[in-house]
Amino acid sequence: MNYSVVIYILGWIMEIEAAFLALPGIVSAIYGEKGGFAFLWVALGSAVAGSAIILRKPKNMRFYLREGFVTVALSWILMSVIGCLPFVINGDIPHFADALFEMISGFTTTGATVVSDVEGLTKGSLFWRSFSHWIGGMGVLVFLLAIVPMAGGSHMNLMKAESPGPSVGKLVPKVRQTAKYLYIIYFALTMIEVIFLLFGGMNLFEALTTSFGTAGTGGFAIWNDGFVSVSPYNQWVVTIFMLLFGVNFGFYFLILTGKLRDALKFEEVRIYFIIVIAAAVFIFINLRHFALYAPAEGIRQAFFQVASIITTTGFASADFNLWPETSRTILVLLMFIGACAGSTGGGIKVSRFIIACKSFIKEIISYLHPRSVKKIKIEGKPLEHETLRATNVYFMTYMVIFAVSVLLVSIENKDLVTNFAAVAATFNNIGPGLSLVGPMANFGHFTDFTKYILMFDMLAGRLEIFPMMLLFCPAVWKRRRA
Amino acid sequence: MNYSVVIYILGWIMEIEAAFLALPGIVSAIYGEKGGFAFLWVALGSAVAGSAIILRKPKNMRFYLREGFVTVALSWILMSVIGCLPFVINGDIPHFADALFEMISGFTTTGATVVSDVEGLTKGSLFWRSFSHWIGGMGVLVFLLAIVPMAGGSHMNLMKAESPGPSVGKLVPKVRQTAKYLYIIYFALTMIEVIFLLFGGMNLFEALTTSFGTAGTGGFAIWNDGFVSVSPYNQWVVTIFMLLFGVNFGFYFLILTGKLRDALKFEEVRIYFIIVIAAAVFIFINLRHFALYAPAEGIRQAFFQVASIITTTGFASADFNLWPETSRTILVLLMFIGACAGSTGGGIKVSRFIIACKSFIKEIISYLHPRSVKKIKIEGKPLEHETLRATNVYFMTYMVIFAVSVLLVSIENKDLVTNFAAVAATFNNIGPGLSLVGPMANFGHFTDFTKYILMFDMLAGRLEIFPMMLLFCPAVWKRRRA
Repeated sequence: MNYSVVIYILGWIMEIEAAFLALPGIVSAIYGEKGGFAFLWVALGSAVAGSAIILRKPKNMRFYLREGFVTVALSWILMSVIGCLPFVINGDIPHFADALFEMISGFTTTGATVVSDVEGLTKGSLFWRSFSHWIGGMGVLVFLLAIVPMAGGSHMNLMKAESPGPSVGKLVPKVRQTAKYLYIIYFALTMIEVIFLLFGGMNLFEALTTSFGTAGTGGFAIWNDGFVSVSPYNQWVVTIFMLLFGVNFGFYFLILTGKLRDALKFEEVRIYFIIVIAAAVFIFINLRHFALYAPAEGIRQAFFQVASIITTTGFASADFNLWPETSRTILVLLMFIGACAGSTGGGIKVSRFIIACKSFIKEIISYLHPRSVKKIKIEGKPLEHETLRATNVYFMTYMVIFAVSVLLVSIENKDLVTNFAAVAATFNNIGPGLSLVGPMANFGHFTDFTKYILMFDMLAGRLEIFPMMLLFCPAVWKRRRA
Repeated sequence: MNYSVVIYILGWIMEIEAAFLALPGIVSAIYGEKGGFAFLWVALGSAVAGSAIILRKPKNMRFYLREGFVTVALSWILMSVIGCLPFVINGDIPHFADALFEMISGFTTTGATVVSDVEGLTKGSLFWRSFSHWIGGMGVLVFLLAIVPMAGGSHMNLMKAESPGPSVGKLVPKVRQTAKYLYIIYFALTMIEVIFLLFGGMNLFEALTTSFGTAGTGGFAIWNDGFVSVSPYNQWVVTIFMLLFGVNFGFYFLILTGKLRDALKFEEVRIYFIIVIAAAVFIFINLRHFALYAPAEGIRQAFFQVASIITTTGFASADFNLWPETSRTILVLLMFIGACAGSTGGGIKVSRFIIACKSFIKEIISYLHPRSVKKIKIEGKPLEHETLRATNVYFMTYMVIFAVSVLLVSIENKDLVTNFAAVAATFNNIGPGLSLVGPMANFGHFTDFTKYILMFDMLAGRLEIFPMMLLFCPAVWKRRRA
């Protein structure tokens, strides 16, 4: 383990977070809130501590996959611990475990909240909550790549550890260049959404926070009733942008580089939209069957909720906890599928399901033609053995962590659906689940022990499990000779 | 597809079933029940039809994996359809879908029942229900191997398709010989249990039916309250034999062939017992914490229920639906783990979980030492690539079928826990689940549509998914030139 480079990067993380924290401070100042000073003081402390660290540049800047994973895991924990302090100091969320839960939920773009009265929070805190989604959506370390120069290959190791989904390879002939492109797409799409929402009658604060939550596929809303009271036009805008941010960014990359034909052939994106439309239509029919909404509202509710859940955003335009069982079950299944790899969404990812389905079909064919040696193809290319293996291990680990989490949560909580839904909603970075953690409820009623379990799940879900697991592996912490 | 050989084997299945059906007929006769004629008439019909088929022996007796899988799937369906007719005719279960559900539940050793008053059934029906567990536990086609001579390799293809778990290879240098050994072990263990139960005060009928249910890890009981009123001694006997039948039969094979040292090193068996003891102790502590039972009873309840669930038997010595949430959650997790491969139990199987855990550990190591190429070892030997691939595909398919089943069941049923538990209990061949399908409830309240879904799940679970899936594959049904 190359400790010095890990600490050096953590120093940079503190610098960046200080800069980010200044923003909610300014927002508070604009609204004349005293609590705004909490953000500025924490920003100042973070900046000073970070500077002290990065002044001493380590001699050996090279690091390997192990350092990449550990750095990513520690960075996210550090960011959350620092980021939650203003909530504690300004009194919006006085209990530390609650504040940390809220912050991790923000950075991991989960959107599960412990706050029952969000309208009672200061504007600064509301802004910081939503802004943390936006930061976490793209990943801080990818951002760092554009700033800190490192030895060749190190960038790749960082990006591999932080990016969601199995398809990093596709975008990264030149990592720093790619990171820059991704941020431009991300920033531009967010701004376009802001404009559409302003046009729909939101004020700037509402439009910004909503767009941050959409872009990061986060899910924190600034209203107590979520999106129930938002106008139909703005609900449609949010629906469309949730779906757009759930698309593999490689798709936009292809469009920007003029490869429109390749973009249209993008298998994962096509199947993602097929799933969305099929699920929404099915739910619409199911809602109509029970005569729950007028047709126009039904189709809007169905698409909004499907987009919100499959992209793991978690905005709620209705209390889907009260919907018919078939609709609820479809939503639960969507929770696990998740968005495209290489998007800001969470969950298992569409591409992994495509790989799973193709493996199954290949298995069936192998019974019919035992001697055939057809390779699985994805996006037109044969699936690399390494990717398949990683996908398989991911599925197995996913199941094991899921089961252990439900077991641990069950120690202090009585309702099986709630426990299952709480783990599903945090591990998949969605936010609201069913029953006691449904869209009109929150996570505040859990004990601290349960909250820490769910915090781990949120981080493990966002960082695709392995960085977090590696922290528990003693061999990781052995010092390596430089 | 070599249709003639498939039909020929189905003919043999009818002959064997006719012989089996004579037994409950005799039991009915002993108890002077008129309903007994139902068994004899169906037996006669099956024998005649079967004879008509097997008179014409096909020229080409060779068949391949595809024929093996299809034959197995069709045999189990045929057996269930014929076997359920006596229930309909003697009026014990007049509705056909109910009777078929009960029969499939019997042969697949699930033990989920639609009958609320089992004590009201005729002795003949009770015997047939339990006997079907015993038949299904070892598999009918493996039995057939000992009778019908076939072209070399064909036996292996049949056995591969019917045996539970990934470890057939281990036992089968000479398939027919092995099948004979397996049946001897199975028969002997069953008889030993009968003797122990007789010694504990059961009458012969009770001892036989209980032993059949234990041996097949089935779960049909002959009392309305399951095993609640059975004496503590007999509960312990059943507990121990449930655990013994959940052991990989390769373990007994090694003991019988004098390889005691190898037997003691049997990794899957050791881990199976570690899981059992750990789970039972944990549940015992949890029950004591809530002061639910006296210590002696608590330890008995904990071990009985753990043995019953992990072996997927499903006998109930208590209404564990009312146990504390942690205990319930542990039981739910055990439902998925299941017994050892190569046993009569269902579920995902211990060996598959060992493979999953080892894959995970190997993945972690690969992050630390990217260039290491260590192979996963199981039972001291490197895991073959083929086995690992099959395990992965199994996990993925398992998840997909599970999800789709829950979705389909949700169409007509309102409670998410019940739906989830019903699929878990049938797909893993356990029997009782939680909530509305808990140990003191039954499956009778479901609609026919839901019952057919669950019947498919039971068969898919028992036959390890692929034979059943292959039936839906049009390419399978193409005629192959002989």
